[in-house]
Amino acid sequence: MLIIGERINTSRKPVNKAVAGRDSAYIQADVRSQIDSGADLIDVNAGSRRNSEVDDLLWLIEVIQKALPQVRLCIDSPTPDSLKAVLDQVAHPPMLNSTTMETSRFEAMAPIIQFRECDIVALCIDDRGIPKSAGQALENAVRLVSDLERLGVKRERIYLDPVIQAVSANTNAALMVLETIDRIRRELEGTNVICGLSNISFGLPKRSLMNRAFLTLAMKAGLNAAIADPLDKKLMGTLSAMAVLLDQDPWCQAYTAAFREGKLET
Amino acid sequence: MLIIGERINTSRKPVNKAVAGRDSAYIQADVRSQIDSGADLIDVNAGSRRNSEVDDLLWLIEVIQKALPQVRLCIDSPTPDSLKAVLDQVAHPPMLNSTTMETSRFEAMAPIIQFRECDIVALCIDDRGIPKSAGQALENAVRLVSDLERLGVKRERIYLDPVIQAVSANTNAALMVLETIDRIRRELEGTNVICGLSNISFGLPKRSLMNRAFLTLAMKAGLNAAIADPLDKKLMGTLSAMAVLLDQDPWCQAYTAAFREGKLET
Repeated sequence: MLIIGERINTSRKPVNKAVAGRDSAYIQADVRSQIDSGADLIDVNAGSRRNSEVDDLLWLIEVIQKALPQVRLCIDSPTPDSLKAVLDQVAHPPMLNSTTMETSRFEAMAPIIQFRECDIVALCIDDRGIPKSAGQALENAVRLVSDLERLGVKRERIYLDPVIQAVSANTNAALMVLETIDRIRRELEGTNVICGLSNISFGLPKRSLMNRAFLTLAMKAGLNAAIADPLDKKLMGTLSAMAVLLDQDPWCQAYTAAFREGKLET
Repeated sequence: MLIIGERINTSRKPVNKAVAGRDSAYIQADVRSQIDSGADLIDVNAGSRRNSEVDDLLWLIEVIQKALPQVRLCIDSPTPDSLKAVLDQVAHPPMLNSTTMETSRFEAMAPIIQFRECDIVALCIDDRGIPKSAGQALENAVRLVSDLERLGVKRERIYLDPVIQAVSANTNAALMVLETIDRIRRELEGTNVICGLSNISFGLPKRSLMNRAFLTLAMKAGLNAAIADPLDKKLMGTLSAMAVLLDQDPWCQAYTAAFREGKLET
């Protein structure tokens, strides 16, 4: 399970403040804590600061890589031009978040994806909008994989996002995504499935309870990457327990080690 | 999801003390709290008190039914003769816990099952012992259903228990049980699947974390009854969240009601 730490996002108030004030110590400490808690990559998002997004991203990339030269980054922007402007400053092959199958978005992203080898998050959305069924999501996934492969992207670098809707708006949303994940893993072998988990519980109370139950189901269905907060100990505890239940943790070694390190919170 | 409250079991010290001292107020209060927390049936088990099991069961049945005449009971004993001795004292159609496909056990249970209409928990164990694969568990399930139907038991009264082993002893245990549950629900339509959840985490730390993750997976696979502690708010919260995720809670009404009543614990 690949964890992309989601905390460096200017939509979070303390991060926005740190970016505005160029407080590199705050950013570096936050990234370090995410890595120590199990993040494999660090998502970097300054999309809420429209007028300075590129400058902010460049500053974030610099201060993070200065303190933690080994860290892999996921550059997260709704604006292809912003991704393009910062791409060659990223030391290790980056993850790009994201493209879709929408015509204009895919066309804008294609040259960026070809510019250097990268992992790419690909949302199963096309010009018809958010998919209304697992079948429609899978259709988009098939086209994304075929079009990305045509650009020279290897399957193992493709992270398909089935696009989670809120169960409060569509009661079938969770079942639909689980079916999509399962079918992607069966029918598009070699690709990865990624989710932003928390959309599922939008508009409901006790969201973390629902997010964890959904993560559990999604992992069984085949989810193998998640954009999440690695400092959420209950979420990370669920990940550890799931590795045991899915027979991915020989002799429960990682689980019992996490327990000894105080990382399992119920 | 049918919840069978598991607390009235003399292997629990305070219950053993209450039974030994004929403290009816303690038993009645505990049962009332289980019902208030969402139990559909109350499991009654005095198996740890071998020399007085039948007397103790008769007393328990009497004091529970006196305080709560509507309550349905699950009579739980490893000894068929004990079940037989108390069966006609149960006011409402009881659940019997349990039979297996072992020759001597099934032969002893058959006349009891025919004595009055009852729900029956049927463990997928035969003379070869605990099943070593989902296929073997399903074989036992098929024979149990066929032999129970021959005794006149309706399918909807059969609760098949796939028998959970500890993942600490067999790392494939969870995946095997999930496959068994899924196949029972597909191939033996109309029957129910029940589990005692907590075996899965035997020998590991933070058991409730693992029990909840397993419950989540088992519900998705088709589990529709569980012997559990309804006073475990985290477990009951997971049940509420799962009803939403499985599209069994229209407009999230039950979930938001449980939240307002303070019943959702993360």
